[in-house]
Amino acid sequence: MQNTHHRIQPYIHRTPVLTCQTLDQMAGASLFFKCENFQKMGAFKMRGAANAILQLSDEAQQRGVATHSSGNFAQAIALTAQMLGIPAFIVMPSNSPEVKKAAVRGYGGEIIECEPTLAAREATLAQVVERTGATFIHPFNDDNVIMGQGTAALELLQEVENLDMVISPVGGGGLLAGTALAVSHFSPKTKVWAGEPAGADDAWQSKQAGHIIPQTNPQTIADGLRTSLGDKTWPIIRDHVERIVLVEETEIFDALRLLMERMKIVVEPSGAVALAAVLKEKIALKGKRVGIILSGGNVDLKALAGFFG
Amino acid sequence: MQNTHHRIQPYIHRTPVLTCQTLDQMAGASLFFKCENFQKMGAFKMRGAANAILQLSDEAQQRGVATHSSGNFAQAIALTAQMLGIPAFIVMPSNSPEVKKAAVRGYGGEIIECEPTLAAREATLAQVVERTGATFIHPFNDDNVIMGQGTAALELLQEVENLDMVISPVGGGGLLAGTALAVSHFSPKTKVWAGEPAGADDAWQSKQAGHIIPQTNPQTIADGLRTSLGDKTWPIIRDHVERIVLVEETEIFDALRLLMERMKIVVEPSGAVALAAVLKEKIALKGKRVGIILSGGNVDLKALAGFFG
Repeated sequence: MQNTHHRIQPYIHRTPVLTCQTLDQMAGASLFFKCENFQKMGAFKMRGAANAILQLSDEAQQRGVATHSSGNFAQAIALTAQMLGIPAFIVMPSNSPEVKKAAVRGYGGEIIECEPTLAAREATLAQVVERTGATFIHPFNDDNVIMGQGTAALELLQEVENLDMVISPVGGGGLLAGTALAVSHFSPKTKVWAGEPAGADDAWQSKQAGHIIPQTNPQTIADGLRTSLGDKTWPIIRDHVERIVLVEETEIFDALRLLMERMKIVVEPSGAVALAAVLKEKIALKGKRVGIILSGGNVDLKALAGFFG
Repeated sequence: MQNTHHRIQPYIHRTPVLTCQTLDQMAGASLFFKCENFQKMGAFKMRGAANAILQLSDEAQQRGVATHSSGNFAQAIALTAQMLGIPAFIVMPSNSPEVKKAAVRGYGGEIIECEPTLAAREATLAQVVERTGATFIHPFNDDNVIMGQGTAALELLQEVENLDMVISPVGGGGLLAGTALAVSHFSPKTKVWAGEPAGADDAWQSKQAGHIIPQTNPQTIADGLRTSLGDKTWPIIRDHVERIVLVEETEIFDALRLLMERMKIVVEPSGAVALAAVLKEKIALKGKRVGIILSGGNVDLKALAGFFG
């Protein structure tokens, strides 16, 4: 993973690790926040996207890259491609918010719209790849993407010693699996936990069952965490993640409010889930040194206003 | 001012200086944001409050300190007093928001309520000082407070070389006067500007007239900037501040939104005024290196929601 980190360094920010006395007091623990909300394009996804694209041959890079995403991964692919001067083709549902389309276009990505169904998305992506010769990069179920996402935890471990635990949110599992690989390799005594919305609890269900249980009908404000685990992220999570803590929507809002009011930082709801999990489990974490990965900061202020108003 | 800085260091954070590529592109200049929103209790006021209290004799400190403020200065006095283990008496109008009273109480300050008039505030404060022997510390019209506030600019100048300009917001003028003293002493070639709401333009009016013109009926969301200059802040501003840039309320909101959406930081409306001024004057500032003092980050999310919703 150190090779991965070295490879992507020119394309990412080394994000700061922040602390907050007030939150430490509330949690009864020492919290170290890895602020991927300050990452380029606003989320950790930049790390995995950059790593996957940089692993392609020059020839493949020139033909371009493609993905399907309406969120941060689309922006990460578009921005990395722009930095490399290669084309990026992004398949997005036609009902994606205009602000998300504008963000992808702002980074030079070419948007190909499709009907908002899984079948249409996959068919459209296949056509794009066929037509352009671009390489498809999956948003999370990809070894190179997972390794890239793990570099956030790697940096955290380089900066903060003797962590008892690192916690990240879990959606498709790219960030969590990468974090688990980094921690188990570089700090094997440190435990890995995850925070997951109770309204999108497929990772928790999967851990209970011992096999992947796909997410159906997710209900959560944390839009980055609505996806199911993949067959590449699941085995890593099964083997290296000690616990998945479920949090309610009100707990996510409360954590988001604390991050804004006390730490003065803007974090997306998915990013607040890990802090919500820490506050929920404060008895178990009393006196511990806990690393928290704040996954990103791309928020829709208009949507947030609805909760704080 | 280096003595001042040395004196208050155990009581303050050295706040980070952040940069943002997107905002640099929008401004056509290199912007360096001194993030006093990350200061203890959430604003630069901590610097001046700490300096003023630390200049008192031990005996005077033991009798305690008093001020009138419904905002950040009240919290700064209360927190410094708490750190020193001495009493703090805060005179607040009876109609102050509960959240502000709770913040002062949270730092151990004793609140004495008064009618929401200037006369009642001064009478109540005089009674408190008479009764307790506490020393009154003015929120801005005080040499020690001004020197303390200037240490934010001092740290900025230590960290960023060759600034063409430093800009701060102006209300009572403590931050601006302190900034002007720091810059004129440590970096005399660097110009000092201020941003001021057009709806509370007493500093601009005073500069035009050449003498203090008090603020009447201020109309701005930037609640920290509604006060008039004082006789100690005015002469420094008159002599060392090159320009005061007036900004409209919509320009303040736009700047606030950029700080949240692009830099992922929470800043109070008063803090966004300096960035609003820079964006308004981007032709004059093209290619320049500009230091921006973000004064604080204590916001009422509920009030903000009204603007972003």
